[in-house]
Amino acid sequence: MKAARYYDRGDIRIEDIAEPTVQPGTVGIDVAYCGICGTDLHEYLDGPIFVPPAGQPHPVSGESAPVTLGHEMSGVVYAVGEGVEDLKPGDRVVVEPYILRPEVDTGPDNSAYHLSPDMNFIGLAGHGGGLAEKIVVERRWVHPVGDIPLDEAALIEPLSVAYHAFERSGAKAGDFALVGGAGPIGLLTCAVLKAMDVEVAVTELSRLRRQKALDAGVADHVIDPAVSDVAAEVRRLTDGRGADVAFEATSVNVVLDALFDAVRPGAVITVISIWGKPASLDMQKLVLKEVDLRGTIAYVNSHPKTIELVREGRVDLKPFITRTIGLDALVSEGFDTLIHHNETAVKVLVDPRS
Amino acid sequence: MKAARYYDRGDIRIEDIAEPTVQPGTVGIDVAYCGICGTDLHEYLDGPIFVPPAGQPHPVSGESAPVTLGHEMSGVVYAVGEGVEDLKPGDRVVVEPYILRPEVDTGPDNSAYHLSPDMNFIGLAGHGGGLAEKIVVERRWVHPVGDIPLDEAALIEPLSVAYHAFERSGAKAGDFALVGGAGPIGLLTCAVLKAMDVEVAVTELSRLRRQKALDAGVADHVIDPAVSDVAAEVRRLTDGRGADVAFEATSVNVVLDALFDAVRPGAVITVISIWGKPASLDMQKLVLKEVDLRGTIAYVNSHPKTIELVREGRVDLKPFITRTIGLDALVSEGFDTLIHHNETAVKVLVDPRS
Ligand SMILES: NC(=O)c1ccc[n+]([C@@H]2O[C@H](COP(=O)([O-])OP(=O)(O)OC[C@H]3O[C@@H](n4cnc5c(N)ncnc54)[C@H](O)[C@@H]3O)[C@@H](O)[C@H]2O)c1
Ligand SMILES: NC(=O)c1ccc[n+]([C@@H]2O[C@H](COP(=O)([O-])OP(=O)(O)OC[C@H]3O[C@@H](n4cnc5c(N)ncnc54)[C@H](O)[C@@H]3O)[C@@H](O)[C@H]2O)c1
Repeated sequence: MKAARYYDRGDIRIEDIAEPTVQPGTVGIDVAYCGICGTDLHEYLDGPIFVPPAGQPHPVSGESAPVTLGHEMSGVVYAVGEGVEDLKPGDRVVVEPYILRPEVDTGPDNSAYHLSPDMNFIGLAGHGGGLAEKIVVERRWVHPVGDIPLDEAALIEPLSVAYHAFERSGAKAGDFALVGGAGPIGLLTCAVLKAMDVEVAVTELSRLRRQKALDAGVADHVIDPAVSDVAAEVRRLTDGRGADVAFEATSVNVVLDALFDAVRPGAVITVISIWGKPASLDMQKLVLKEVDLRGTIAYVNSHPKTIELVREGRVDLKPFITRTIGLDALVSEGFDTLIHHNETAVKVLVDPRS
Repeated sequence: MKAARYYDRGDIRIEDIAEPTVQPGTVGIDVAYCGICGTDLHEYLDGPIFVPPAGQPHPVSGESAPVTLGHEMSGVVYAVGEGVEDLKPGDRVVVEPYILRPEVDTGPDNSAYHLSPDMNFIGLAGHGGGLAEKIVVERRWVHPVGDIPLDEAALIEPLSVAYHAFERSGAKAGDFALVGGAGPIGLLTCAVLKAMDVEVAVTELSRLRRQKALDAGVADHVIDPAVSDVAAEVRRLTDGRGADVAFEATSVNVVLDALFDAVRPGAVITVISIWGKPASLDMQKLVLKEVDLRGTIAYVNSHPKTIELVREGRVDLKPFITRTIGLDALVSEGFDTLIHHNETAVKVLVDPRS
């Protein structure tokens, strides 16, 4: 079958590899769509980061580069292994792409399996990937999506990132949220917040991305930080109070500073973005305003909840799919669009069969 | 009466000023002891910070420099104003030294009065101070201490800072806490944690302060960061797990970094110290470990709880009083001891009558 294989920085190859085999307790999936994530770009431009370099196998998967890429996938079950009773061929599913130590409790009551040692991701550290025609995944990580269209379903994974960030923040209905950045992650965070009846303002440099936030109906207010003082604007929108919660989805220091200025005392600022360098933090604001600065990584027991949100129509993922390409165009068109023309692109999906 | 008056940076004078008058709703207190706080030193060396400079009156108190200093005071009631029924001359009391806008709800159900706009402190921004023979304080801010000795009672204020930091952290019995710094605030934080059945390790450069933590029985483990890797030592003490909570009471960046390394995923790091410059923060650790970094300022409804802790014998404040001086010796001996010989000094008390 065809698969996109990550060899090293700048070296991703579309190759023919052997199909995976369905083992007891696993599910065989024909991949329908797989989204390209910022993390995939990072691996390509600056990696290997999550990918175990050649000769340094991941302690759980035992694999190292080359590995199959892609962790934002949807598909249709084509076979189930022995012992899998609750899924059948034809079911539409998505994958929660975890690679965890076998001893980790991944039951619904463990709210910290995503923080367990050696945690890594399918499609980065082994166990196949969504940028291939087929993948075989342990039953635990396969979530049925019912009648959600398969292209939209490929966005359940980043939506789960946003959902978990929302949970970490403690935001609740009636709150006012300020989101820093309207890239895919910022926009999906806005979408979750709106679904939870939070009032949403988003600050974003790109005019087209601000427009996307409005057109998709996921922001009540958009702020152009090049012309407005973000904190003053938020105070104006909140009768002088300041935002109750804020989300950092840019990894840009001036945005972090603006969030600190724009929140009310006692607020929570949740950092979603991955920073390549240390941040400069004004501790006076953290201390005197008693701000909580919280990190958030990936998701934990989030997929069933995000699938519900989409099935109930409370989150519409359609507006965020801006393009679909074939596997052969992954680097030349997919990565290139996201790296060089990413103002108009939100999510680029890959159909590995075309 | 004699009072220590802050005029400007480096200019504190012991002067004779008029006695305050007891008005309706207020309590007249003969000051017994007043502690010298790091904040007082900061005002002296680098201020005015909290003190409103001459000609720039505080919006609530209407006062500006010169102001009477001192906010860590204990004393004995000598008179009560009209309408004060529940205190009488002879009662031992401490002061929760707030200056707040009159419209702020300061009832026990408001957990955020300390974060209200224009908040400042008695003994810094007006309304008298504890470094004087007498003070008159609104009933709301006077807390009876029963039979707690008056010298120990002068430490209720910094103990309340520590108590509120403990509350902000969410630490609970059985947790393992790492405290950065064994100055007065770090030591009192250790004391509260021990009272709450938390296991405590403290990292501190000064041998004498580490010894104080052990002698006072407020730390289970002391770490010398000059010879040990703090994070490795904490992992050793926690079977590899890492600390559940940590407290930053040094305003030193290497300590902040060490706390991030020493905590387990999902931990809370509470920042108590006042930083004069921005901190450098490794966001990767915040995000990938899902750390909560929380600021904490002063106290809110904390005094009754700390008074209980001391009355029940769960916190012993005696070991932290290292010296008592008269008002005339405030700068020459008090500040000087704390600035130049502060390895042995923890709390220096001033007796304004001697
Ligand atoms: N924590 C997690 O689990 C997780 C998961 C996925 C992605 N991420 C991270 O989330 C971050 C966001 O991802 P993305 O794909 O949306 O990235 P992106 O680069 O597409 O979006 C960032 C947005 O920030 C905007 N921006 C830059 N400077 C700005 C400024 N000064 N003011 C306002 N806006 C500004 C950019 O215009 C851009 O639209 C990345 O760092 C990514 O690595 C984290
Ligand atoms: N948040 C609040 O409401 C509040 C209230 C009072 C005081 N404070 C602040 O709390 C902080 C602590 O106050 P304090 O009076 O205890 O200060 P302090 O200066 O007496 O104590 C700091 C301690 O940190 C130690 N230290 C310095 N570098 C270290 C290192 N690398 N490793 C380990 N230990 C190191 C010092 O030896 C010292 O003992 C100050 O910044 C003060 O302004 C905050």
